[in-house]
Amino acid sequence: MTLLVVGSVAFDAVSSPRGKVDRMLGGSATYFSVAASYFTPVQVVGVVGDDFGEEHHSVFTERKIGTEGLERVPGKTFFWSGEYNADMNERTTLDTQLNVFASFQPKLPPHYRKSPYLFLGNIDPELQSLVQGQMEAPTLIAGDTMNFWIEGKRAELEKMLRGLHAVIINDSEARQFSGEYNLLKAARAIRALGPSTVVIKRGDNGATMFREKEVFCAPALPLEEIFDPTGAGDSFAGGFMGYLASRGAAAQGSEENDFRRAMIYGSVMGSFTVEKFGLERLRQLSREQIDARFQQFQRLVQVD
Amino acid sequence: MTLLVVGSVAFDAVSSPRGKVDRMLGGSATYFSVAASYFTPVQVVGVVGDDFGEEHHSVFTERKIGTEGLERVPGKTFFWSGEYNADMNERTTLDTQLNVFASFQPKLPPHYRKSPYLFLGNIDPELQSLVQGQMEAPTLIAGDTMNFWIEGKRAELEKMLRGLHAVIINDSEARQFSGEYNLLKAARAIRALGPSTVVIKRGDNGATMFREKEVFCAPALPLEEIFDPTGAGDSFAGGFMGYLASRGAAAQGSEENDFRRAMIYGSVMGSFTVEKFGLERLRQLSREQIDARFQQFQRLVQVD
Repeated sequence: MTLLVVGSVAFDAVSSPRGKVDRMLGGSATYFSVAASYFTPVQVVGVVGDDFGEEHHSVFTERKIGTEGLERVPGKTFFWSGEYNADMNERTTLDTQLNVFASFQPKLPPHYRKSPYLFLGNIDPELQSLVQGQMEAPTLIAGDTMNFWIEGKRAELEKMLRGLHAVIINDSEARQFSGEYNLLKAARAIRALGPSTVVIKRGDNGATMFREKEVFCAPALPLEEIFDPTGAGDSFAGGFMGYLASRGAAAQGSEENDFRRAMIYGSVMGSFTVEKFGLERLRQLSREQIDARFQQFQRLVQVD
Repeated sequence: MTLLVVGSVAFDAVSSPRGKVDRMLGGSATYFSVAASYFTPVQVVGVVGDDFGEEHHSVFTERKIGTEGLERVPGKTFFWSGEYNADMNERTTLDTQLNVFASFQPKLPPHYRKSPYLFLGNIDPELQSLVQGQMEAPTLIAGDTMNFWIEGKRAELEKMLRGLHAVIINDSEARQFSGEYNLLKAARAIRALGPSTVVIKRGDNGATMFREKEVFCAPALPLEEIFDPTGAGDSFAGGFMGYLASRGAAAQGSEENDFRRAMIYGSVMGSFTVEKFGLERLRQLSREQIDARFQQFQRLVQVD
């Protein structure tokens, strides 16, 4: 079933111990939609400037991602530049130029409003709520946020969270939002607002999912070389939501096992993303490679 | 089969956000042997002072742990005092009094030398090597170390590691010893010295085992309340080695699955230890409770 994503489309400059790229396509909606496109039809809503060329557009179209909601306006596309430390576990933002993203007002083509699955990438929670309100009969709405909104727009963020079925955030954000270091307590505080599923991404420590009765731990795949961690979290969310949409899974009443498999597919997509710079690895996958890595993840925890 | 452990027996003072205990039995060999005693016969080699009373001795004997190698000498028992921060993820050592432990020379009763399983707790690597050399026909020798020896006795530590089949250490120590942040590379560097199995403990992120061809990830159980993390790593090692000894597992040629189950039993014992102060929870278990928690760990990662 169709999955709609609203978020950033950007150009990134990334420097890591494995190399340096001055300008490549990135952004949360981009990583999310490419990752999800291996599982289900995807439509993207975002904004780009007039420096967004055909070679960038084709990243979406080659994966058959609907771009009717990808608005093009005069000006430059959102630009982000960052540098990873020697251990790849910390990054420094060197530059952020919001450009056309500064005045982004997501506009949903009318037929997008019927989409049963929606992911609200990390944008202003007021805009996230605006999109939520336009959906006609959503089966499952998930969303992300970040420290900037937790600090600056708490009330708006809480309102938005109440409209989500699932939250997918980093451990540091879960802790900051809830004021609880313990992740069981942090997840409970978020679930108390409304979302029945809370997924906490823990970087190279894997991800943990908290639902009504069960906790599920997905490991991270130990990788020899990490080239560029940018987009790994968004790729995780794309694999997670893409798989759920392909299964027709609902927020409530669905099989716990669908959500558990979604956690592994999310981890699989994140693990591919970090193996090359930007979207390079993520763009060139086959479902066979994805399923082979799914088996690798299963083997990591298998006990007979 | 019989499992011998050499290490510290201590009195601990612990302060955590959940409370404070001024003096209780602790030490690496104590946690290890109590945890292992649920799986296999255990013998302990260590030193205590004349402040070590019958109520402390009974902690071992009530678990049927052989104490013939627990030497009593004039003076005070090793004392350690520490404090955990609000999030329980960092601790500060407030006081260390080596006392009788300062001149500890492990003496193995002759029949202990035939023990097929040996765990060398974190003591001076020269003493660890001395014990290694006294073993007559070891099936599996595992050991631990810490930053103090990595910094101060590197050559002796490398020599000792060459005589181990398995290493069980913390992630920070694996990184410090190898100079590699990436744990796959850190484990490979340690395996290159000789040990065929490297287990890296990652605190509340679980534990990862590296063997010739396979990597195994054991999750940590998300716990609501942690009272006292002291001894969790030693309890892990006790559960791990205790289970392997009960299976008669050898360093090479044994079933991968025995080692994987040992990782979960290790995690189970660590998870019990942190639920109360000191040995309080660990002393009062039944094999049924242990196996029920084993199932809980399995359910944490189960995907159908």
